[in-house]
Amino acid sequence: MNIDQLHAYRQEIQHHLNNELLPFWEKRIVDHENGGLLTHFDKNGNDSREDEKSLIAQTRSIYTFASAHRAGYGDGRYAEIAKHGVEFLLGKMWDAENGGFYWLMDRKGNVKIDEKIIYGHSFAIYSLSEYTLATGDPRGLEYAGKVFDLLQKYAADTYYGGYFEMFDRNWELKGPGSAGGDRKTLDAHMHLMEAFTTLYEASGKQVHRRKLVEVIGLLVNKIMHPTYKTGIPQFWADWSVAPQIKFDIIWGWDRFTEDGVKSAAEDNTSYGHNVEFAWLLMHALDIAGIPYSEYEEQLLASFNHAVDYGVDWEFGGVFVEGSHAGEVYDREKEFWQQAEVIIGFLDAYRIYEDEKYIKAYDATHRFVFDHVIHKEVGEWLPLLTRQGEPIWTHMSHSWKINYHTVRSMIQALVRLDKILAK
Amino acid sequence: MNIDQLHAYRQEIQHHLNNELLPFWEKRIVDHENGGLLTHFDKNGNDSREDEKSLIAQTRSIYTFASAHRAGYGDGRYAEIAKHGVEFLLGKMWDAENGGFYWLMDRKGNVKIDEKIIYGHSFAIYSLSEYTLATGDPRGLEYAGKVFDLLQKYAADTYYGGYFEMFDRNWELKGPGSAGGDRKTLDAHMHLMEAFTTLYEASGKQVHRRKLVEVIGLLVNKIMHPTYKTGIPQFWADWSVAPQIKFDIIWGWDRFTEDGVKSAAEDNTSYGHNVEFAWLLMHALDIAGIPYSEYEEQLLASFNHAVDYGVDWEFGGVFVEGSHAGEVYDREKEFWQQAEVIIGFLDAYRIYEDEKYIKAYDATHRFVFDHVIHKEVGEWLPLLTRQGEPIWTHMSHSWKINYHTVRSMIQALVRLDKILAK
Repeated sequence: MNIDQLHAYRQEIQHHLNNELLPFWEKRIVDHENGGLLTHFDKNGNDSREDEKSLIAQTRSIYTFASAHRAGYGDGRYAEIAKHGVEFLLGKMWDAENGGFYWLMDRKGNVKIDEKIIYGHSFAIYSLSEYTLATGDPRGLEYAGKVFDLLQKYAADTYYGGYFEMFDRNWELKGPGSAGGDRKTLDAHMHLMEAFTTLYEASGKQVHRRKLVEVIGLLVNKIMHPTYKTGIPQFWADWSVAPQIKFDIIWGWDRFTEDGVKSAAEDNTSYGHNVEFAWLLMHALDIAGIPYSEYEEQLLASFNHAVDYGVDWEFGGVFVEGSHAGEVYDREKEFWQQAEVIIGFLDAYRIYEDEKYIKAYDATHRFVFDHVIHKEVGEWLPLLTRQGEPIWTHMSHSWKINYHTVRSMIQALVRLDKILAK
Repeated sequence: MNIDQLHAYRQEIQHHLNNELLPFWEKRIVDHENGGLLTHFDKNGNDSREDEKSLIAQTRSIYTFASAHRAGYGDGRYAEIAKHGVEFLLGKMWDAENGGFYWLMDRKGNVKIDEKIIYGHSFAIYSLSEYTLATGDPRGLEYAGKVFDLLQKYAADTYYGGYFEMFDRNWELKGPGSAGGDRKTLDAHMHLMEAFTTLYEASGKQVHRRKLVEVIGLLVNKIMHPTYKTGIPQFWADWSVAPQIKFDIIWGWDRFTEDGVKSAAEDNTSYGHNVEFAWLLMHALDIAGIPYSEYEEQLLASFNHAVDYGVDWEFGGVFVEGSHAGEVYDREKEFWQQAEVIIGFLDAYRIYEDEKYIKAYDATHRFVFDHVIHKEVGEWLPLLTRQGEPIWTHMSHSWKINYHTVRSMIQALVRLDKILAK
């Protein structure tokens, strides 16, 4: 380990966070006209005027500003932005009749899609809990608790365990196939772990910890590949592997064939998602008071699969996805996987002290700072070629926003400080 | 089948129900002094003055009078008794701070045991749903729904499926061993099936049907013996068989050795419980709109095990319990098993039309009417020798009450009418 190098990373991150990334958002995000947060910006950082406010983008942005405030940034201004987002979320997006949050609104706050999607509700729990931890405003935890209760009532599967994910406005489970009512996903369960962690941190309630430990068990024992311990994206209700299909309600840009199925539908894993899972698991264990050693095999497998197969040692960064055994299917570079492995590789190095993790970190850090960050504007480019040429160039929309990027920078600093303090 | 014989059973039951059993209760049950229902009577039917009102006895009595009213008895007087019970249940036994019902009160309505026990809450859902179906008073369904929601939040195990059963007042899961926090039981899950059936009948809500179908799955695939399809009393959280122990909170008089373990702790099944399960399952399938044929193997196994091993062909009635393979361990005769097989054997005969079921019914019917019913007083004796001599003689206390006896007589009439209408 080269201490000067760690300090150099630190400075580079701090500069980007304080002078580019947080200012980018602070300048633009508040919708003074309609309330809530603006979340669509083109490559020059201009409002691209899509007439939508999505549950994910609103909640993730609330998380971003609440967590930045809790981490000591913004001199109170970020707490105000988070509060501004919470007012719209609770005032316009909450379904007072059935409970839960609508999936998509227009900018003014009219409902465009009224369905109840668990993936989005995981971010509601996460961001509202973080908001109360950051500001002390009890409404955040109150509504996070309400959403938790709704999930237990409507989404939990009391036969096979885990959570169903796709519901109509009145919380009736949706039908099979692309409606998604017959499937369970890694994505939703991982973000429920993330959400229950912060909910328990805020509430201290036994029931929140209990369901956190249960969802950790599901992730480690049912959702991770039995041999490789890498994440499997989709399952049937009974936890047998389901081919990875595109749902009617999407929350990202995963690329599917024309019939809505992944090209490697049953042997596909995301390096970045696996590392994100590992560091979120470590954080969950910290909050729950469980030693990392109980999950060491899983943690090492998650980190090592990404280091061994996902890192691009030639051009830097991590690839999109590949087979569980290791073969790379997609060598492009998406922004969020870079953001998550930046945190995860530092955690791996912090605990296991193997130089390969800091090398993997370095390869990603350099790719991000040399190619992904759109420095003149302040945010990260969403998708690049293997070599680092931009493919997509918008700065934000409903499924991108600021949660991965800002969290990555804040949490990387926390971890670098821990490593430097050793 | 002898039609005259069926008519004779009918008349005997109708006479007992209308002239002995319902009048016994109508005369005594209302506590005019403190509100709620009186539930402790000695062998002569005199108030035995135990200073307690248990969640089970209050809810079961509400069920009794609500269901009798819905079945057409009492000219409205039984609806009033049910309502009198509901006022006390909601007014005194509901924990407004934490939600849920206390386990045990004194007669005046002061809390004696404040723990939250799922077994008792299954009867709260059952009786309050029946109360709304019988009377139209919406409070019943409102509180049944609240209890359902609490169970989903606090009791459901989202990893292994099913429900934990023993909680402190604030719904924190209790510790292991005799505290019971590490176990799951046939008893609670069977009564949750019973409860969710009537809840769904009253609400028509998808979520209530969904959790009903899930608990049926647990009962059939995890709780019944894989070979014999007979009920296994206790499990660890992961559904491996646990030795049958006595809990700190009890709801019956199961006989244990001095160290609180059953003499045949890991190979023990109750004939009467198995038949009760089978007819409750048939009723659940009726309400959920699922054909019996989907569970035929289970239903026949439940009925046949009791007919082949449980019926006492010499003295009549059914024995208490024995091994899964069939060996009888306890040849005494308890009242509630007789009550339940009276319904179940008629259901078996109604559907499968095998004469052995009506013979088994006859053996039980005669034992009940010749030995169990304490005719001069009106209720059933709780425990008798194999030959029919009384062992225990009280008419009621917190764990006996009127739910098995009255329901048995009402439901036997319904089934005899169905058979006669064929």
